[in-house]
Amino acid sequence: MSTDSKDDLVFKALANGLRRQILDALKNKAQTTGMLCEQFSSLDRCTVMQHLKVLEEADLVIVQREGRERWNHLNAMPIQAIHNRWISQYAGQAMSILSALQQGLDRVPE
Amino acid sequence: MSTDSKDDLVFKALANGLRRQILDALKNKAQTTGMLCEQFSSLDRCTVMQHLKVLEEADLVIVQREGRERWNHLNAMPIQAIHNRWISQYAGQAMSILSALQQGLDRVPE
Repeated sequence: MSTDSKDDLVFKALANGLRRQILDALKNKAQTTGMLCEQFSSLDRCTVMQHLKVLEEADLVIVQREGRERWNHLNAMPIQAIHNRWISQYAGQAMSILSALQQGLDRVPE
Repeated sequence: MSTDSKDDLVFKALANGLRRQILDALKNKAQTTGMLCEQFSSLDRCTVMQHLKVLEEADLVIVQREGRERWNHLNAMPIQAIHNRWISQYAGQAMSILSALQQGLDRVPE
């Protein structure tokens, strides 16, 4: 698959709020599909699994099978690649500062 | 607009290879719409302007008008926000190293 097609998969996977929430849930620890279904209890199991499949195809989630369980791990490499593509190493530091300033400004009461 | 709707706009804008190429072209310097049309000469002006509009609505491009010219600037803040959401400050350093290693491996002849 070309890099451009891979990138398409990544951005299409991220262009859905629920899939972004699943990645948020995996940020700090890997979770089994069962654990994710409990957290997203408003969705049926089939829907959660479909979203996980899209994330897996985009390489944003890596699945590790242990017996009957599927452990879903966040793979941050494609996200790092987005950053590397448009933000150089030095600009990244300036962006972090700007981003922190922006968050500070957002917290200031009007 | 909610943060989630804003994020939708960002990822939908990035889910198109041509729009990603336009952002690549703006990475190192701002360009007028005319300059971009010259670089993407296989597209008509109207198509380039439509892609720029999508990027502007997603806040990935900031437009500065000077007389009859529109200068298009890359705004990397939404890209930094993607990185901040899933990669913490410390993980970011590890990811940079992993990413550099991966690039090194990709260059090794088989």
